[in-house]
Amino acid sequence: MNLGVCYYPEHWPHTRWATDAAHMRSLGISVVRIGEFAWSQLEPAPGDFRIQWLIDAVNTLHAEGLKVVVGTPTACPPKWLVDAHPDILPVGDDGQTRGFGSRRHYDFSSKLYLQACCDIVERVAGALGTHPAVIGWQTDNEYGCHDTIASYSANAVSAFRGWCEAQYDSIDALNTAWGNDFWSLNYASFQAIEAPRGAVTDTSPAHRLAWWRFSSDQVVAFNRQQVEILRKLSPGRDLMHNFMGNFTAFDHHAVARDLDVSGWDNYPLGFLDRDAATDADRLRWLRTGHPDDSAFHHDLYRGLGHAQAGRWWLLEQQPGPVNWAAHNAVPLPGMLRLWGLEAAAHGAELCCVFRYRQQPRAQEQFHAGVLLPDGSESPVADELRAINADLETLGELSQTERGSVALVFDYVGHAALDAAPQGGNASPLEAVKDWYRALRAAGQTIDILPPDACFSGYALVILCNSTILDEDIVERLDASGAMVIATARTGSFDRDCAIPETLAPGALQRVLPLKVIQVESLPDAVLEPVNCDGGLNAWRWRERVDSVLTPAACFTDGWGFHYHQGNWHYVNARLDAESTQRFVLARLREIGLHITDCPGGLRLRRRGELVFAVNYGPDSVELPHGGPFLVGQRRMEVADVSIWRCTG
Amino acid sequence: MNLGVCYYPEHWPHTRWATDAAHMRSLGISVVRIGEFAWSQLEPAPGDFRIQWLIDAVNTLHAEGLKVVVGTPTACPPKWLVDAHPDILPVGDDGQTRGFGSRRHYDFSSKLYLQACCDIVERVAGALGTHPAVIGWQTDNEYGCHDTIASYSANAVSAFRGWCEAQYDSIDALNTAWGNDFWSLNYASFQAIEAPRGAVTDTSPAHRLAWWRFSSDQVVAFNRQQVEILRKLSPGRDLMHNFMGNFTAFDHHAVARDLDVSGWDNYPLGFLDRDAATDADRLRWLRTGHPDDSAFHHDLYRGLGHAQAGRWWLLEQQPGPVNWAAHNAVPLPGMLRLWGLEAAAHGAELCCVFRYRQQPRAQEQFHAGVLLPDGSESPVADELRAINADLETLGELSQTERGSVALVFDYVGHAALDAAPQGGNASPLEAVKDWYRALRAAGQTIDILPPDACFSGYALVILCNSTILDEDIVERLDASGAMVIATARTGSFDRDCAIPETLAPGALQRVLPLKVIQVESLPDAVLEPVNCDGGLNAWRWRERVDSVLTPAACFTDGWGFHYHQGNWHYVNARLDAESTQRFVLARLREIGLHITDCPGGLRLRRRGELVFAVNYGPDSVELPHGGPFLVGQRRMEVADVSIWRCTG
Amino acid sequence: MNLGVCYYPEHWPHTRWATDAAHMRSLGISVVRIGEFAWSQLEPAPGDFRIQWLIDAVNTLHAEGLKVVVGTPTACPPKWLVDAHPDILPVGDDGQTRGFGSRRHYDFSSKLYLQACCDIVERVAGALGTHPAVIGWQTDNEYGCHDTIASYSANAVSAFRGWCEAQYDSIDALNTAWGNDFWSLNYASFQAIEAPRGAVTDTSPAHRLAWWRFSSDQVVAFNRQQVEILRKLSPGRDLMHNFMGNFTAFDHHAVARDLDVSGWDNYPLGFLDRDAATDADRLRWLRTGHPDDSAFHHDLYRGLGHAQAGRWWLLEQQPGPVNWAAHNAVPLPGMLRLWGLEAAAHGAELCCVFRYRQQPRAQEQFHAGVLLPDGSESPVADELRAINADLETLGELSQTERGSVALVFDYVGHAALDAAPQGGNASPLEAVKDWYRALRAAGQTIDILPPDACFSGYALVILCNSTILDEDIVERLDASGAMVIATARTGSFDRDCAIPETLAPGALQRVLPLKVIQVESLPDAVLEPVNCDGGLNAWRWRERVDSVLTPAACFTDGWGFHYHQGNWHYVNARLDAESTQRFVLARLREIGLHITDCPGGLRLRRRGELVFAVNYGPDSVELPHGGPFLVGQRRMEVADVSIWRCTG
Repeated sequence: MNLGVCYYPEHWPHTRWATDAAHMRSLGISVVRIGEFAWSQLEPAPGDFRIQWLIDAVNTLHAEGLKVVVGTPTACPPKWLVDAHPDILPVGDDGQTRGFGSRRHYDFSSKLYLQACCDIVERVAGALGTHPAVIGWQTDNEYGCHDTIASYSANAVSAFRGWCEAQYDSIDALNTAWGNDFWSLNYASFQAIEAPRGAVTDTSPAHRLAWWRFSSDQVVAFNRQQVEILRKLSPGRDLMHNFMGNFTAFDHHAVARDLDVSGWDNYPLGFLDRDAATDADRLRWLRTGHPDDSAFHHDLYRGLGHAQAGRWWLLEQQPGPVNWAAHNAVPLPGMLRLWGLEAAAHGAELCCVFRYRQQPRAQEQFHAGVLLPDGSESPVADELRAINADLETLGELSQTERGSVALVFDYVGHAALDAAPQGGNASPLEAVKDWYRALRAAGQTIDILPPDACFSGYALVILCNSTILDEDIVERLDASGAMVIATARTGSFDRDCAIPETLAPGALQRVLPLKVIQVESLPDAVLEPVNCDGGLNAWRWRERVDSVLTPAACFTDGWGFHYHQGNWHYVNARLDAESTQRFVLARLREIGLHITDCPGGLRLRRRGELVFAVNYGPDSVELPHGGPFLVGQRRMEVADVSIWRCTG
Repeated sequence: MNLGVCYYPEHWPHTRWATDAAHMRSLGISVVRIGEFAWSQLEPAPGDFRIQWLIDAVNTLHAEGLKVVVGTPTACPPKWLVDAHPDILPVGDDGQTRGFGSRRHYDFSSKLYLQACCDIVERVAGALGTHPAVIGWQTDNEYGCHDTIASYSANAVSAFRGWCEAQYDSIDALNTAWGNDFWSLNYASFQAIEAPRGAVTDTSPAHRLAWWRFSSDQVVAFNRQQVEILRKLSPGRDLMHNFMGNFTAFDHHAVARDLDVSGWDNYPLGFLDRDAATDADRLRWLRTGHPDDSAFHHDLYRGLGHAQAGRWWLLEQQPGPVNWAAHNAVPLPGMLRLWGLEAAAHGAELCCVFRYRQQPRAQEQFHAGVLLPDGSESPVADELRAINADLETLGELSQTERGSVALVFDYVGHAALDAAPQGGNASPLEAVKDWYRALRAAGQTIDILPPDACFSGYALVILCNSTILDEDIVERLDASGAMVIATARTGSFDRDCAIPETLAPGALQRVLPLKVIQVESLPDAVLEPVNCDGGLNAWRWRERVDSVLTPAACFTDGWGFHYHQGNWHYVNARLDAESTQRFVLARLREIGLHITDCPGGLRLRRRGELVFAVNYGPDSVELPHGGPFLVGQRRMEVADVSIWRCTG
Repeated sequence: MNLGVCYYPEHWPHTRWATDAAHMRSLGISVVRIGEFAWSQLEPAPGDFRIQWLIDAVNTLHAEGLKVVVGTPTACPPKWLVDAHPDILPVGDDGQTRGFGSRRHYDFSSKLYLQACCDIVERVAGALGTHPAVIGWQTDNEYGCHDTIASYSANAVSAFRGWCEAQYDSIDALNTAWGNDFWSLNYASFQAIEAPRGAVTDTSPAHRLAWWRFSSDQVVAFNRQQVEILRKLSPGRDLMHNFMGNFTAFDHHAVARDLDVSGWDNYPLGFLDRDAATDADRLRWLRTGHPDDSAFHHDLYRGLGHAQAGRWWLLEQQPGPVNWAAHNAVPLPGMLRLWGLEAAAHGAELCCVFRYRQQPRAQEQFHAGVLLPDGSESPVADELRAINADLETLGELSQTERGSVALVFDYVGHAALDAAPQGGNASPLEAVKDWYRALRAAGQTIDILPPDACFSGYALVILCNSTILDEDIVERLDASGAMVIATARTGSFDRDCAIPETLAPGALQRVLPLKVIQVESLPDAVLEPVNCDGGLNAWRWRERVDSVLTPAACFTDGWGFHYHQGNWHYVNARLDAESTQRFVLARLREIGLHITDCPGGLRLRRRGELVFAVNYGPDSVELPHGGPFLVGQRRMEVADVSIWRCTG
């Protein structure tokens, strides 16, 4: 794994650049990401391209032997472009134009904006595409950040009409598929279709899901346009995008198909504060981040690159406090090292710290860097040196290998849950994570796979959000021989977000003869007990199932819980976190997988022959096995990392 | 009482209709409501009327001996109408147009929309008005659902100006009545008046109450227009509207005056989740609904039909989980039967389940029906059969009779409290319900009356929200000889929402010599104790009263609580729920009414000679008296119903 | 101190005026404030001025010997003006015009509105400027009430561009100062600058702070325009404005510089309900208001008039329940007297009760007055008589004197914290108050000073929100010899809200060799203990400091807490309220100031030789010293006031 850093030469005097490059080198850094917010410096006025400073900067880095990933600057259209063409601005779901003054103020459906992006990307790629230091390109920056996937502009509505026309044979077919008879919502032509916003009450799930898929497709097309230019002007370089955490507003698999490497941006403390399920979690992991959250995303994005053999890069790694959460704590000493080595454990080719030097001005002035605003080192610089030393100890790392257990993550299926949640506390991403955490608490090394993955070789596969299920995946899973756990709501929608003709779980009925006849969403305080696997509690979601199968256990009211036949299991309720863990443990034991109990903040991850142990705390732990140790030791303090070669 | 079902033939193949009709019949159903969302199928393009399918459907039902209530389809204007005339769309209080994509996207003040409604209603009524199966008509659907009574469109503002001109002698009279001198808000002409929205801070209570009355009058006029067409084209049929639960945004008495039957839509679990006062209540009655909530609305809407001898129909009854609350639980087995028989206890002529078959698509795809989406029976079908069997056991039910105790419900007085709440936790509807619940906990059969009712024969009348009091009601109450409890804020406004010249309680001062000199609203956590009736707590609202009368009890600071003289009582504070119950019990004892203690979820209701007991749980109960039983027995499990003939 | 009352003759018949005037006189009232909402009565149609009624009213008051403060009526533009020129209306940060219907519906940047204000002020001042009863003028009313300082209109944006041009040498200088390189936010010209609203995510702190300063300057200019007219037409009268509580949206020092007297409006119960930091406080002080809150504002606004030797008037004092909080309780008997005498203790020249007679109509119909709506006395009339009697007992009051301890309050520094809070719970005003309360709990008489004050003679000065620190204040403080406590974030911004080049605390580094290298914001539930001064807890905000100084104490992780050198102290964390008190006590002991412990609701304040003690409760207290008593006695019941001549 290489170490990298995000660098903004445009913020600092040219005279400083060489100093910075030498310093980076001294820290063990070999890759620098630059350029992704610099449009107004690259083209300060219409057609007035000024690329030379960027070439100079790359040359300066190159002179120190550093490699460079260049970001296309299209996340930040300059003011002159907005003033000349205000309709490149996106429109919110409140109908208000989202204006200039921050970033991502553009509409994926603006043809004019797409053309402007072509022009600037061609210029930058033309200037640096074949530069020997340039090893890769990042398209744009964090698609969708600040809720910017969907725009409700006139451009978007017009494009949506075209998209619908391409998807459905006729307007009658669309009306039927969407159930438009329901409230007299029939359209007479594709040109009459509206965006699903501003209605008196809920628009239909089919309408919302179609809009989601359209918006996602617009991102794919936008990204592909840049990919095509970069492939032509910068041959042989790795293309990537920096995806975000806890974000499902477009189909990441579809975007990733056009890229070489899957990149993502990891902010463990920021995510914790913004996204944690409970305040208790928010406090417990205040200075470490949730012990499963980096790992979950590492595996999710590694799986994104599945078609590309799991290549993934950590393009932004939080080094200290950030600026954008409601509370921005300082990480415990050692956490940057832990996060970095954990990325290595999950197979990252690069761990790139965001950012090199703290910028004393603008929106992120309190976001920590490797350097302080005054140019001196911040406390985390030494942690980079420590990672570097550890990596040298470990030597060349083998490729990550396929594990024994996998989750399937389906972005479209996930979107269907958002479109038809049938309950205010559906929280589908949290549900997926509960399954991931349960596996990890048992010491498993987990793959997260796209629906079109090959499942052969797995002992256990869990369908977490495969709500729109086709025959093909059922067949592939059935052929794999793995135990398959289909969680509640699997197969519960057709592609237009409607209940399948044969009722849920739809295509799963080929292997499990059952049908869901009632669903209910429940307040958080309600637990519905089931007396099996040591006592489980259904929580938030429960189904009544009609089946010839004998349920594996029953609720207290006599309705069944958990149906299985052969390798197939259907869990007809959501479980609370502890129950999910208990249920998973029981299944792992059934299939005889080796289980290591990971209490508190201890977590294990295998990469080839190496086992990485990390301790997120809050207490020190004694490793149950392991050693002799390449890094660390058996007794692990909080934020410690121990690594040994697996002899088993 | 008849059983009915809401049916949407337009969603299913014509070939299925006869099957459905026969099945309905087999369940004991005799009435079918149809047509109320079908405009786009009845007129798919401007002027292209296609009524025949609806006639065919009615014929199919008729062939099975089923009777039909037809809904006018005006709650859902089709897209072509919206596209042709965008100004039929309503405008929200944020100034944004509320668009197409769901339902109720129309403005009561759009003359163009009113004309379009005339056209479609004339066509449908012309086609089916004299059909032998058609026994009634429902106008539109749920006026006001999704906050659609008030629209702030240019059409509405223009109509409001005319309405003001009709209400006030001159613009000076309006300025004086509204207190426009206060912040230089004087208008020079009626044409200068604005809607009470978008101001820098609060608009005046007089302005808001006038807007409420105007908006309510627009609903009355809209409804009346349809009534006139239906009376002409479908003579002899019952006209009705399906009112909603927990809804006070227009004067239901005024709309009902033009109708024959009072209809309403009962969703006990949906209401509980959306509207319950506390989370504790939300959990306690999760699968049953609040034990007083259906009854309260039954009595409220029965009282709405007072001028028509209390005729009321339950036009929609929740049969299983709904889709529109934050949490949508499955009712306990037996609850549909309980709800149905409780409607019979309160005098319903019809209990109509919404809906016959669950629609697998669109906004309500998870809303349960009697059939599942695949056409098989859902678990509730058997409960319909059970109701039918019970009704056959009971035979012909007598008319409901006037009880001994009554609440007066005044929609305009209620609106005044919303316009001038003087506190963020005023919750006036909850206050009304507390008085209702207190009576019901004592086993009383309660009438809820309009302000213009005749009060003779009652032993106790409670004024719950009669904030705008005229001399006439005081005289009628005084003449009735009933004990009258006037709750806090009775008579506290003149018709323009101002404090009366002689201070509150205004017209009540003729019978109770007192004046309210200070009012206060208090946080929920504050209880102000009074040592009487076993210990009472004032809560949320308290008044200081100046009077020659000796208060019946005092607060700890020496100010009086509860004044009375002759049959008249004034309660100068809001009481918490338990205190309200204690206070009511003491008064019931004073007037010697028979009291039955109804603990837990047990509730009693008399209809003629029959006494209906229902147990909402959460525990089984032993009836204190009753029997021999026509239905059920003395020991009642949760969701049980017991019915006996009263021998006393 | 004089007693006054706010009076609205335009609401009542002329025939009543003399009765009211005589009654005021009988209560001991000598000053009447009138006219500030009467534009529509003074100019009912364009150019149709009707000032005579106001002259008549002043004459009537004058005939009783009452003095008058006239308010300019510019807070309430009449409807005809709005209709003629809709662009005088302000625009909210949501881009929506804020319309007519309440008050303050005007834009400080509308030149047309400024001209209209000139016209009406000239007319009123022309008519009454030299009237012998008129002793002062209030400009407008409560600048900023209902969030009306900033408007985002086209007029405002245009003015902002001009303002920026005047502030920065060139657009490049602005781009650099604001850090616009950061997200390609560079402007090519001043004409391209936008208001900081409606962007996709956060605009930059520099942008927001510039907008704040611009908006504040617009208020200064607006106010100055009226001041100039009044100085010319009403020579020798005191000019003032009635500032609000808990309000920092413009630079009050800058506005006050043009005035003679600092006025403010005190609503202890309203502020408590709206602004209290915790629900526990909201309940504890329900009927008294927070015991430090009136005092804090008295001292803050007294300091505002620093350049004018601390002259300040209480222009509105809550007498009973108000109408505008979420809960509006009745004050305890005696509280109006307590509040009035406390104002005297802090040096008020006037205590003016709002309002004379409760208005039964419009937005404030439930706002208590000295008279009830029916014209009879409300319970508070007697408390005015009591204040009057007490004041007669005390005789002529001496001027307030400079105390030994002071806080510095910096509106621009405060605004910088709002622009760059780096945490959702920053609550900078609450932090200031914690320091004030800590001093007051130790019985100190406190001055609150503007940054440009003279500090000589103080024993202790606390910098509470001096985030933008210049060399000058450091020098003046250093020269004063006072112990100076610089709280966390002091000196942490340059004038464009950026981190100083030498890092925080910037200019303070001249006297304290340290730099802040990391900052963090923490959830409320996190306490970070420090073992000094009896045990302190950092809370919400903590910094890591690099310094050659030995910290006075350390956090448990070894980082330092609290640095000092010579008279200078830097506190590198926010402390919870109790810890703040402990820390202050320790410092007061170090410098040997006399400490009186003020438990519960007891508070002390010295004015010249007099000591005022007030008991906000909730229990009676025994004064630790004092007497012989001019007013009250040693044992103080709740709401009691005791006053004695200090012999020490």
